[in-house]
Amino acid sequence: MEPTQLVDEGLEILSPSECLRLLEETHVGRVVLANGALPVVFPVNYVLVGDDITFFTGEGMKLRAAASATPVTFQVDHIDLERETGWSVLATGQAQEAAGSELARATALGLRPWAAGMRTHLIRIRPDVLTGRRILT
Amino acid sequence: MEPTQLVDEGLEILSPSECLRLLEETHVGRVVLANGALPVVFPVNYVLVGDDITFFTGEGMKLRAAASATPVTFQVDHIDLERETGWSVLATGQAQEAAGSELARATALGLRPWAAGMRTHLIRIRPDVLTGRRILT
Repeated sequence: MEPTQLVDEGLEILSPSECLRLLEETHVGRVVLANGALPVVFPVNYVLVGDDITFFTGEGMKLRAAASATPVTFQVDHIDLERETGWSVLATGQAQEAAGSELARATALGLRPWAAGMRTHLIRIRPDVLTGRRILT
Repeated sequence: MEPTQLVDEGLEILSPSECLRLLEETHVGRVVLANGALPVVFPVNYVLVGDDITFFTGEGMKLRAAASATPVTFQVDHIDLERETGWSVLATGQAQEAAGSELARATALGLRPWAAGMRTHLIRIRPDVLTGRRILT
């Protein structure tokens, strides 16, 4: 594990490897897409396949982002209301539709859509940049 | 309570009043700011004062958004990993720095910053648009 770096304002900066570890142990995150001035947020259940964030989607904004190879933001966090602490990780990278071995690996890891409907497209986001913060307690 | 509307793809559309009720009972959400092509996400603890989302912040992007009266997106969700269900609410509205009676009311409702540091600015987002979705189980 790389050493973490202390910042002011009571937040610890997480290293990319720590961000990846947190992404791996979490199973719900948020796809955040630019939509003019007002971003939109889509919670999804996901699994990490290698370093790729993978989730299923139907037709819509997430699939269009993948079709146009648009960079997207993916966010996960864990907030502990009792202890008033938490962490947040942001991944940015290109979204692309995936299939073949990546689809097989994601399914083997238990990935399937929660909501009913035709969510048959597997999207993967390959993070270019991983940043994270944790509240110091 | 307004009737909810069924949509395809296994998601129920939540009415604005249901969205407001969910915002009121939740205490951690995410400020989402446009940042060129890649939005950034800041989890915050908050309270609803009237219909306003209020939270503390220090210097930085959230305060600058408020100073420039930029519209921002605020997101809350609740995900139940066991039951594989959940809901998500998006509020969009102008962020502004607040003080005076709103500061007193937010503090009376228990709002205070979790992280150490100079988070002395109270920001309020007055939602113009409230939208929400729930996974049908």
